[in-house]
Amino acid sequence: MEEKYYIGVDLGGTNIKAGMVTTKPKVIVKTSIPTEAEKGPEHVLDRIADAAENVRKRSGLSRDLIGGIGVGSPGTLDIAAGVVLFPPNLTGWRNVPLVEHVAKKCGMQTVLENDANAAAYGEYWAGAAKGAESVVMFTLGTGIGGGIIVNGLLVHGNTDSAGELGHIVIEVDGRECPCGNRGCLERYASANAVAARFAEAVKRGEESMLADKVKAGEPLDAKTIEDAALAGDELSNKIYWETGTYLGIGIVNILHTLNPARVVLGGGLVGAGELLMRPVRETVEKRAIPDTQRNCVICLATLGEDAGLIGAAGCALAAFGTSQS
Amino acid sequence: MEEKYYIGVDLGGTNIKAGMVTTKPKVIVKTSIPTEAEKGPEHVLDRIADAAENVRKRSGLSRDLIGGIGVGSPGTLDIAAGVVLFPPNLTGWRNVPLVEHVAKKCGMQTVLENDANAAAYGEYWAGAAKGAESVVMFTLGTGIGGGIIVNGLLVHGNTDSAGELGHIVIEVDGRECPCGNRGCLERYASANAVAARFAEAVKRGEESMLADKVKAGEPLDAKTIEDAALAGDELSNKIYWETGTYLGIGIVNILHTLNPARVVLGGGLVGAGELLMRPVRETVEKRAIPDTQRNCVICLATLGEDAGLIGAAGCALAAFGTSQS
Repeated sequence: MEEKYYIGVDLGGTNIKAGMVTTKPKVIVKTSIPTEAEKGPEHVLDRIADAAENVRKRSGLSRDLIGGIGVGSPGTLDIAAGVVLFPPNLTGWRNVPLVEHVAKKCGMQTVLENDANAAAYGEYWAGAAKGAESVVMFTLGTGIGGGIIVNGLLVHGNTDSAGELGHIVIEVDGRECPCGNRGCLERYASANAVAARFAEAVKRGEESMLADKVKAGEPLDAKTIEDAALAGDELSNKIYWETGTYLGIGIVNILHTLNPARVVLGGGLVGAGELLMRPVRETVEKRAIPDTQRNCVICLATLGEDAGLIGAAGCALAAFGTSQS
Repeated sequence: MEEKYYIGVDLGGTNIKAGMVTTKPKVIVKTSIPTEAEKGPEHVLDRIADAAENVRKRSGLSRDLIGGIGVGSPGTLDIAAGVVLFPPNLTGWRNVPLVEHVAKKCGMQTVLENDANAAAYGEYWAGAAKGAESVVMFTLGTGIGGGIIVNGLLVHGNTDSAGELGHIVIEVDGRECPCGNRGCLERYASANAVAARFAEAVKRGEESMLADKVKAGEPLDAKTIEDAALAGDELSNKIYWETGTYLGIGIVNILHTLNPARVVLGGGLVGAGELLMRPVRETVEKRAIPDTQRNCVICLATLGEDAGLIGAAGCALAAFGTSQS
């Protein structure tokens, strides 16, 4: 049996990333091109196929050496049918038959996966959660995404909607969420939530070296608040501490539900490092059932931007790897 | 291949229940004997073996027709080792090698399972969740237990502690829980929580037809409050409505984490029926991501007291069924 290679594609609202991945796993060639979502679904599907072909050609591998293509996509999906149902970030997309189109255009079997799931699978296969059989990943960006692996398999749920960890409720009558619910973790522990809660505190009258910027209506992001925290700004430190505490509660809920071996934290917000991790660890140590927290390692993602494409390639290996002869 | 039978045992702090179960599944003989926990672990292990032998003899089946024994046990477990680590309801138990003892005494292969998991597996195999491949069960008694099934398999987690659904946090700074945490679902939506929250409301001065009993220090249980609610007592109705709302939030968290096809509610508290289910449904409809709630049936358990022993037998079938010749 000849060793195969797998192409992983990470479809985003702004960029399409693709990579040729070995079963080691190692990325040997990769590319990133603008999604050009404004030109509509057909155009984007062609660009996905182009990106896949690009890395195949540059890697010098013939089609018969490619085991398959995995595509990580945002939005709600029908994974078995290979259809992207409704991705909020890709306007005009409704029930787009991604797998059929890409497979035909590239002449290679193709599998679809949720983008946050793909990132989790990447960290499980090649990154921070390597060797753990039960893994939960939180992706902390503008919102919060999640991916769950149990016994080495991604948990998809009944309609491919499992892992919506940003919408775990941690306060029954908590902050309003655009999803229509209240108290969602995403309103407390995403990068956007850090900025929003900071601005609210300043408007309530709390002091900060960034107060003038908030009052001038300048939009602040989590990174600016992180820098202020590291420079000694008390309010910024407090907001990060609270953020880590809330995130810790979300992790406690996951430990008590799934008792995973590894919890991986990824996404832009984890750039804050210990500013976030200290309150996370303290909260989990104080509030989780001892057995579940002693037997779980909470760690930062290690694959960065490549997690999605590596994981998508891993999903292709999982889907097609055993059918090879 | 001859059809085998499986013995399921439900070990409780008060009683040991055992049943002979067919692969249909159907219970053909069952028994219930006092646990006599005060006489120590060895004695209880002998009684488990006695109960298993009792149903075997009464069913008239020879040992070679029995595929195995499954035992559902409370407390923390090491399932692979067959050891009961620390069951709070069984004093003096520490690292008890249950499987080794029962298997030797009965001459039949034996498997251990958590009691709440066994009940969930019973409902999945033979009850309210039959035919669903992803199932979450909440057992609402004095506390709240849980069991999770994904792709037809129980989720055990890294150290057999998954499914501690009573300790999902729904309020960051919520009610104190004996587990050391705050805001645990169990403090809001168990039978004990109904009674405790009702008594607190009366002490705060709220009116109820049961107020005099509370003031006289008479202990009230959830059933008494249920009866008062059905008789039109406003406070009792309010407490049940809030209980269902809190439980609904717990279910929302599970829908967003696991996107199951079925959520099963069991345990003493669900005797309240619509009193509980109406606010549960209203909360889930209002607060869950539409796709996850539209594709999940929330229903009451149907096996009652037998869920544990049927599920334990099912776990024995799952463990030993394919090894038969």
